[in-house]
Amino acid sequence: MSESTTVVIFGASGDLTKRKLVPALYNLYLKKRLPEKLNVVGISRTVFSHEEWRSRMREGVEEFSENTFDEKAWNTFADQLWYTPGNADQLPDLKEILAFLSEKEEKNANRLYYLSVAPDLYIPIVQNLGQLDMAREKEGKVWRRIVIEKPFGTDLKSAQDLNAEVQSVFREEQVYRIDHYLGKETAQNIMFLRFANAIFEPIWNRNYVDSVQITALEQVDVGHRGAYYDTSGVLRDMFQNHLLQIMALIAMEPPASMEPDALRNEKTKVLSAVRPIDPFDTICAQYNGYRKTKGVAKDSHTPTYAALKLNIDNWRWQGVPFYLRSGKALNRKVTEITVVFRQPPHMMFGNQNGGNFTPNVLSICVQPDEGIHLSFEAKVPDSPRQTRSVDMEFHYADAFSEYVIPEAYERLLLDALIGDPSLFTRSDGIEVSWKLMDPVIQVWESAEAPELATYKPGSWGPDESDELLADDGRTWRLGCLDDEVIG
Amino acid sequence: MSESTTVVIFGASGDLTKRKLVPALYNLYLKKRLPEKLNVVGISRTVFSHEEWRSRMREGVEEFSENTFDEKAWNTFADQLWYTPGNADQLPDLKEILAFLSEKEEKNANRLYYLSVAPDLYIPIVQNLGQLDMAREKEGKVWRRIVIEKPFGTDLKSAQDLNAEVQSVFREEQVYRIDHYLGKETAQNIMFLRFANAIFEPIWNRNYVDSVQITALEQVDVGHRGAYYDTSGVLRDMFQNHLLQIMALIAMEPPASMEPDALRNEKTKVLSAVRPIDPFDTICAQYNGYRKTKGVAKDSHTPTYAALKLNIDNWRWQGVPFYLRSGKALNRKVTEITVVFRQPPHMMFGNQNGGNFTPNVLSICVQPDEGIHLSFEAKVPDSPRQTRSVDMEFHYADAFSEYVIPEAYERLLLDALIGDPSLFTRSDGIEVSWKLMDPVIQVWESAEAPELATYKPGSWGPDESDELLADDGRTWRLGCLDDEVIG
Repeated sequence: MSESTTVVIFGASGDLTKRKLVPALYNLYLKKRLPEKLNVVGISRTVFSHEEWRSRMREGVEEFSENTFDEKAWNTFADQLWYTPGNADQLPDLKEILAFLSEKEEKNANRLYYLSVAPDLYIPIVQNLGQLDMAREKEGKVWRRIVIEKPFGTDLKSAQDLNAEVQSVFREEQVYRIDHYLGKETAQNIMFLRFANAIFEPIWNRNYVDSVQITALEQVDVGHRGAYYDTSGVLRDMFQNHLLQIMALIAMEPPASMEPDALRNEKTKVLSAVRPIDPFDTICAQYNGYRKTKGVAKDSHTPTYAALKLNIDNWRWQGVPFYLRSGKALNRKVTEITVVFRQPPHMMFGNQNGGNFTPNVLSICVQPDEGIHLSFEAKVPDSPRQTRSVDMEFHYADAFSEYVIPEAYERLLLDALIGDPSLFTRSDGIEVSWKLMDPVIQVWESAEAPELATYKPGSWGPDESDELLADDGRTWRLGCLDDEVIG
Repeated sequence: MSESTTVVIFGASGDLTKRKLVPALYNLYLKKRLPEKLNVVGISRTVFSHEEWRSRMREGVEEFSENTFDEKAWNTFADQLWYTPGNADQLPDLKEILAFLSEKEEKNANRLYYLSVAPDLYIPIVQNLGQLDMAREKEGKVWRRIVIEKPFGTDLKSAQDLNAEVQSVFREEQVYRIDHYLGKETAQNIMFLRFANAIFEPIWNRNYVDSVQITALEQVDVGHRGAYYDTSGVLRDMFQNHLLQIMALIAMEPPASMEPDALRNEKTKVLSAVRPIDPFDTICAQYNGYRKTKGVAKDSHTPTYAALKLNIDNWRWQGVPFYLRSGKALNRKVTEITVVFRQPPHMMFGNQNGGNFTPNVLSICVQPDEGIHLSFEAKVPDSPRQTRSVDMEFHYADAFSEYVIPEAYERLLLDALIGDPSLFTRSDGIEVSWKLMDPVIQVWESAEAPELATYKPGSWGPDESDELLADDGRTWRLGCLDDEVIG
């Protein structure tokens, strides 16, 4: 295989490139993980000189890289950065871009195309790449891959159309649909927690698990993204991708191997087993003041918060509800997976706690404080039988204090360069997620939509979300936060 | 039932009374847990006035109570303390003692007799108590109970004889054979950990557990107890009682209730299922210098360290070895129960760790830092598949910082006063333990005894102990200590 590689970033003047992509490449460079012969070529409509773009990228690295800035390293790294202006959705422009690439890169260089552009440009650019034969590989010699940012479609139909267009130019193996949640250390670690340890898998099923909660709360509101967000909403922005992907990692059967397709087969399989969601069993809400945001319709019905209950119709999970919630403008930024276990089958300690114990809860903390908490009942000292729920805790930052926890994009960009699509979503994974969310989104966007609930910015969300669980005799739990934070 | 109670301590001039029993009663008094009308009567051969004995006891409380000394509380408490000299093994003396009791206590007072005397006095005193009808209760009105300190016999035969003598005077329900290990908070908590939580019991068996280790190491050597210790040795001093009792709590089936007999039935049941120990499969050792201790025979063969492997022949534990070790003059004071789980059944992460993970280990730390550690494999950050064993930790001192962890004797004395024998050993429990240890002790004390291993004071014990586990492909583990301490 060729040892020379070009990363071609479409949308190189955008925020993502400056804040995430180039800092991630720079970090990989510091760690000597990049191919030795690498070019990074930025492309967008704006006209920059190479030096202008490099200096923008330098600002990004200085501000957003988790490593301290190293002037000398930056200078040698920046020598590999190039910029050429153009609208890749216009064939003549892309021809010029291709000429530029051919001039800069060695003959037979590999290429990673990165689509960091507006979603409506995905199809035109992919089509043009096809037109100019830019997706063609030379088996065993040269590869071509394409990374596609979210959102991947806005509903099932558009996602299917996009998949069809992409697959008419690229083979599935060349396509890397990115979900940066899956690149986070804690998300990656879900599989290791489940399958590199012998003690969790035996109790990871309906016999022992009461319910699972996946919470992804943001403290920020929509900010300056009002115009985009108002056409999307929380169900597209968070549920169809991040939350369902995390749920798949938690709920899937053990793959036979870590081969990318073995893993993705299991994820698709479990998502396919999710019972169709009754839209009238879902909660959607909007925070007070959202409609006054710049770019948001004055009568917007876009939900900024949602909570829903999923059921998985398979042997492992029958009867175990999965509760998902996510929203903006909330009390805290926190992403957590909470596995709530059942009560012990037999209460042999009498009625001292009203006959009930606090159930065991395993909390996987994705952010902000990456770690794992396991709550269990312990006897209160100096009492014969009184118990209290206490925590065993693990914090990544303590256990791995010698490591700087890398940004998700670093892992994902490296995997794309190496050719490991494990942490990327396959076409069927995307479509099965849309199939689940589509009916819910359609009802909430229709004339018969139930009234949106409301909630105060800075709160923990609408009351209706608590009632969704209260109806089942449950409550939302957050095991990773200090108790005093909640409620 | 009478509201007036007398605690009668035989052996009141001894260390145990001063360091443990009276401080425990004082602490219970501070917490208002004692019967309102209480007398504590100290008895021993030495002649003290009430005031002299009170002042000795005050010294003990000041030095050994975990609560700060309260002059005023002590004074009112001390008003209930009395002393009368006498040899209770001599009938005339006991008659005088009885006269003293009758004078001090109300008519129909309950009595707790506490045998804190040399073991050879247990039978004479019990016989005399019988002679003077001092064990007789008035049903529903007055109770009589007897607490018997360890050692309870020196072999199966002597334990059976002692049980027979005791039971000829007291009903089994009146007898409280004390094992202070069972009064420690962490020992009490074993049952709560196992049965107040739903997540441990499903994996608490041969399908998931590789082996169990029970370690009780002492840093001190035999000190001034050489003469006594040399007739006892570690197998009698630690294994027959503490270690086997702890093992029973770990290995027993769930009792149907916390009724004392329900619990003790299960403990006896599991100890009865222990396969007879092959004495030639056990390690006994003596630390260098032991034979120079005052009171120790110059050619002593008494072991100060032992390690052995037990097998439990039942459905739950078949094939799961229980390794027990204990000794004196070792590197650390540490008591820990270590449940080592099996490897995951399928290694799906490839060969990055040589094909193996560190197994999950649940460590129950009895002392010095009471708590629970659960080790598990986590992905090393910034690596695709490398894993490392990390710890979830729980420390009593953190979770229950508002409590002063009470001494074991406090719980046990209170239970005896309340009439809850759960944490005390029943006659059949004592005998089944001796039945297990007797053949081992006999061989080590016989002419055909294998040569004793030796070890350096301050070490982790003899090499032979490590080889016992190495022969099975295992190693001793201590999950509660910091890594740098071990080895």
